[in-house]
Amino acid sequence: MSILVVGSIALDSVATPFGKAEEALGGSAVHFSASASFFSKIHLVGVVGDDFPEKEIEFLKVRGVDCSGIKIEKGKTFRWKGEYGFDLNVAQTIETHLNVFSDFAPQIPGALREKEFLFLANIHPKLQLDVLQQVKRPKLVALDTMNFWIQGELEALKKVISKVDLMIINEGEARELTKEASLLKAARLIQSWGPAVVVIKRGEYGALLLHKNDIFSAPGLPLESVKDPTGAGDSFAGGFMGYLARKNSLDLETMKQAVIVGSAMASFNVEDFSCRRLKNLTMAEINQRINEFKKLSHFEWKHSDNF
Amino acid sequence: MSILVVGSIALDSVATPFGKAEEALGGSAVHFSASASFFSKIHLVGVVGDDFPEKEIEFLKVRGVDCSGIKIEKGKTFRWKGEYGFDLNVAQTIETHLNVFSDFAPQIPGALREKEFLFLANIHPKLQLDVLQQVKRPKLVALDTMNFWIQGELEALKKVISKVDLMIINEGEARELTKEASLLKAARLIQSWGPAVVVIKRGEYGALLLHKNDIFSAPGLPLESVKDPTGAGDSFAGGFMGYLARKNSLDLETMKQAVIVGSAMASFNVEDFSCRRLKNLTMAEINQRINEFKKLSHFEWKHSDNF
Repeated sequence: MSILVVGSIALDSVATPFGKAEEALGGSAVHFSASASFFSKIHLVGVVGDDFPEKEIEFLKVRGVDCSGIKIEKGKTFRWKGEYGFDLNVAQTIETHLNVFSDFAPQIPGALREKEFLFLANIHPKLQLDVLQQVKRPKLVALDTMNFWIQGELEALKKVISKVDLMIINEGEARELTKEASLLKAARLIQSWGPAVVVIKRGEYGALLLHKNDIFSAPGLPLESVKDPTGAGDSFAGGFMGYLARKNSLDLETMKQAVIVGSAMASFNVEDFSCRRLKNLTMAEINQRINEFKKLSHFEWKHSDNF
Repeated sequence: MSILVVGSIALDSVATPFGKAEEALGGSAVHFSASASFFSKIHLVGVVGDDFPEKEIEFLKVRGVDCSGIKIEKGKTFRWKGEYGFDLNVAQTIETHLNVFSDFAPQIPGALREKEFLFLANIHPKLQLDVLQQVKRPKLVALDTMNFWIQGELEALKKVISKVDLMIINEGEARELTKEASLLKAARLIQSWGPAVVVIKRGEYGALLLHKNDIFSAPGLPLESVKDPTGAGDSFAGGFMGYLARKNSLDLETMKQAVIVGSAMASFNVEDFSCRRLKNLTMAEINQRINEFKKLSHFEWKHSDNF
């Protein structure tokens, strides 16, 4: 199965206590596609300016990503400049220049309107709704968002939430969106608005999956060295959706595995700036890391162990 | 095997958004003992004032805890008054009256000096060292501490750390103690100071176990309703040590299980104020919760699932 992703393509300048990167490939749709491309065929819809360095697209093409949906507009590419302190969970935005992204009105090419999986990366919820209207209803639609839309476009956001199957959201944003202190209550409330599945990203603490009435908790892999957390959430979403599309299954066991695959991909993403770590990543390394997650979280408890 | 615990006995007044308790049974040694008593024989050494309500001790006696090591001194019992907001991870101390606890100099009764397991709950590190000198070296010594001693008694604290087998510490305190941003590096550094095993408590996110070179991550159980997190860390330590003593084993698999038992006990503790939830807790409920933890964290990944 293949995945259509609609979202941002950016040039990110990022500084962390462990180094920095200037005008490096970034954006939600890029991190998603790079990660998901290890598991499924990806079709990317987005926009760049005529200043966008062609070699950056080359990386995605080498990864097999279909870039025919990337529009090149007159003007500059979306740029984000940010900084992290020792607490890598919190980004400080220094500059945001939307540039050509400010007028982004996604047009899904005819050939891409019947894909089985759709990821609506973090863009204006009205644009997310617009994308949904252009495509034949996919087998699975997943949605991401951010605090900016929760604060400013709640009505449109709730409308798109009601139309998707799966919502991927940060812990803090889930609480902000639902005004619930309990994460469990927050997730249950989001489920009641539409999506049967909610995935809550918790940064270094891992992720929670709520699949109808079942809950699964994936650990964060304790890492010696995290260089740049930018794009971790989208890398997670990419591994998660990529695995679901590859397996073409939405049952609980597959979703649990998908959360682990997503967690593995996010753990690679943060090991270097931009998408660099994914450039030389091998399937053998991915296998090894998934098995590390298993070792990290599994314990023996048989019926006879009960007190 | 039985466990000697030395620590505080307090009367806590706590308010959270979900209710409050006045002068309720608390203190590190109390929460530890109440929790550990479900699995092993516990001997508690601590001090109370002559105002201490006898019925509070009754609860520990009913749970089989040996209270012969509790000294009653002229004066008032240690009192703590605190408050939590919606972020239940952060306690605001309103008042601390050490009272008789300020002169606490633990004297281990002769009959309690040869116990196989020792838990040095959070008290002045010099007192913890003093306890170690009074007892025959136990099979396992575990240590807890707090930021107050990290900031003010680092030398004594490092000395006691060098003499124990296992350190149980909060995530933030581990970072503060080691000045390492990476939790993994922090834990490795603590291990290099002495304890082969380090357990890092992460509040609602669960716990990490570092057992020599192996790592295990226990999830936090997502709860609909958390009433009072006071004592969660000591309840965790109690379940953890209680299980180790019951099994009389320190191997990796037993330690993993012990982390889960500790997590289960902490999850019960936070469901009500003080130790109230433990008063009517049954072994059947504990079994059920451990199995919830297993369901929450286990996923299938066979060799044939590798890419």
